[in-house]
Amino acid sequence: MKAFQRLALGLLILATVAVAARAQDPLPSWNDGATKKAIVDFVKATTTQGSPQFVPAEERVATFDQDGTLWVEHPIYTQVVYCLDRVPTVVKAKPELANVEPFKTVMSGNREAIGHLTEEDLIKIAMVTLTGMPVDDFRAEVQKWIAAAKDPRWKRPYTDLTYLPMQEALKYLRANGYKTYIVTGGGQDFVRAYAEKTYGIPPEQVVGSAIGTKYGYGKDGKPFLTKEPKLVLDDNNAGKAEGIYLMIGRRPSIAFGNSTGDQQMLEYTKGGSGARLSLIVLHDDGKREYAYGPATGLPDTKVGTFTQALYDDAKKGGWVVISMKNDWKKVFAFE
Amino acid sequence: MKAFQRLALGLLILATVAVAARAQDPLPSWNDGATKKAIVDFVKATTTQGSPQFVPAEERVATFDQDGTLWVEHPIYTQVVYCLDRVPTVVKAKPELANVEPFKTVMSGNREAIGHLTEEDLIKIAMVTLTGMPVDDFRAEVQKWIAAAKDPRWKRPYTDLTYLPMQEALKYLRANGYKTYIVTGGGQDFVRAYAEKTYGIPPEQVVGSAIGTKYGYGKDGKPFLTKEPKLVLDDNNAGKAEGIYLMIGRRPSIAFGNSTGDQQMLEYTKGGSGARLSLIVLHDDGKREYAYGPATGLPDTKVGTFTQALYDDAKKGGWVVISMKNDWKKVFAFE
Repeated sequence: MKAFQRLALGLLILATVAVAARAQDPLPSWNDGATKKAIVDFVKATTTQGSPQFVPAEERVATFDQDGTLWVEHPIYTQVVYCLDRVPTVVKAKPELANVEPFKTVMSGNREAIGHLTEEDLIKIAMVTLTGMPVDDFRAEVQKWIAAAKDPRWKRPYTDLTYLPMQEALKYLRANGYKTYIVTGGGQDFVRAYAEKTYGIPPEQVVGSAIGTKYGYGKDGKPFLTKEPKLVLDDNNAGKAEGIYLMIGRRPSIAFGNSTGDQQMLEYTKGGSGARLSLIVLHDDGKREYAYGPATGLPDTKVGTFTQALYDDAKKGGWVVISMKNDWKKVFAFE
Repeated sequence: MKAFQRLALGLLILATVAVAARAQDPLPSWNDGATKKAIVDFVKATTTQGSPQFVPAEERVATFDQDGTLWVEHPIYTQVVYCLDRVPTVVKAKPELANVEPFKTVMSGNREAIGHLTEEDLIKIAMVTLTGMPVDDFRAEVQKWIAAAKDPRWKRPYTDLTYLPMQEALKYLRANGYKTYIVTGGGQDFVRAYAEKTYGIPPEQVVGSAIGTKYGYGKDGKPFLTKEPKLVLDDNNAGKAEGIYLMIGRRPSIAFGNSTGDQQMLEYTKGGSGARLSLIVLHDDGKREYAYGPATGLPDTKVGTFTQALYDDAKKGGWVVISMKNDWKKVFAFE
């Protein structure tokens, strides 16, 4: 081989290695730093044969909170928007509700008054808008709504408001044999209606606050299930750890959250033996998304109650705090 | 090529084809006939690209009852044997129970009296033997017990008493992209403790009657879950269809059962659109296993309540009745 040929070959190899290295970055929207390194190191440690922290493929469980962790939760949960949007349809079917609170306020269209509805009001609204229909009708309604509804700030479908770095984390974990689960305080059925398309997560891997169903027969004699106004699983706080045990039966190896509702899931994950990683998203990017919680020093907002106490717990417990501002190169795919 | 060589080559090809055909039989312990054909035709119709009944891989759900469908349930459910075996340990920890019924009867060792315990008695026994301990301790106890306990008739571990033809059906469905689930009226936690080793079914694919848990902290500050005496899901009858919706969120394409407790699961499966197959095991083999239910014309036994009415429903609903005697070449792997 001549010197020139050798040089050309060497350059080709170098170029190939560089391309491969870039192609291999599984988290391109994450800035290099301690957070990204913690995730990559965890995945390598738990999936490399012979590693002392190796986890067999069938035991690889990764759980993700949804609201505020996988997509925007501020200033109001998407599911609450859905419930409010459904009120006119429900009132049309049951006109007697038009003069009953909180439905009267919702029907008034007075945004300020709607903004002041209490949690109790919202539960009442949820119960009449999320129950009483066959499960297949409910799924179809949610899918229709989510395809059309738009977030007022970005003027885009809510499903566009998922965080690109988290989508990458989902794919990266799956590519390494992890089963990825959503573990949400929101409605299990609601999230299942779009999770497969939005996150690549099938319904059987969505654990959420679950409303019961009732088995019955249609006029054609065929059986179907109707959503009932009874709560089977309150998938918040301790309910997240209990729900994981009920629905998955394994302790996660890695978990992502962003609020006090995720605290027990993160503790429970971190409390297992072997390699465990708990991560918590800090909303400190008022420009690209929102800043709230301990990042602002302001009192808690109604949603995303990442309190200072939780922040301190995270630091004490060895959780990784994800700074949206510093750790994420891009927040949304459309940027 | 000489005539002799041609003949030899022809024979070789024939022999190869015959071996391949045998190797390809996915259900070798099933006799040829309508039942085996129904299963194979269903799998081909739902998994062949371009078939009008094709089901996308992610939607392929197969559900199996356990007791009497995947393994022997007669004359007493294995989990009941477990609970009875645990009573002395519980009484040792809580001596005040020794003089309280039904624990007194169990401690007496009087087999006839134990055989007459009511369902209410058995629920009392279940509650004290299945709750009150950390979930990890419970799993370890069940795994220890199931490795050691033996069925009195066959003098073998209970896990040897799974039906070989059903094990083949599980593998055949999985090989064709189906997710196989156990949907049992028995305890979800109990079955999860051995299902992965016994059936190749991971804990997250076992749906069963579920007892709640309570989140708490150990002396070391680490969180753990304790089994609580509260029923979260009664996975029997309509509860099976409701449990499938809760835990899986998809209607099965194929379901196997053997008793009235499976009726709604089988109806619900068969009631879906497209290709659906419901199958029900008829215990009509008193020699190799047991004969009970409509096969005998005898009144119902306590377990395996496959009533004449259910048999008629099966025929009317187009379910496939699996005759253990006629459809199964072998019942157990050890035969």
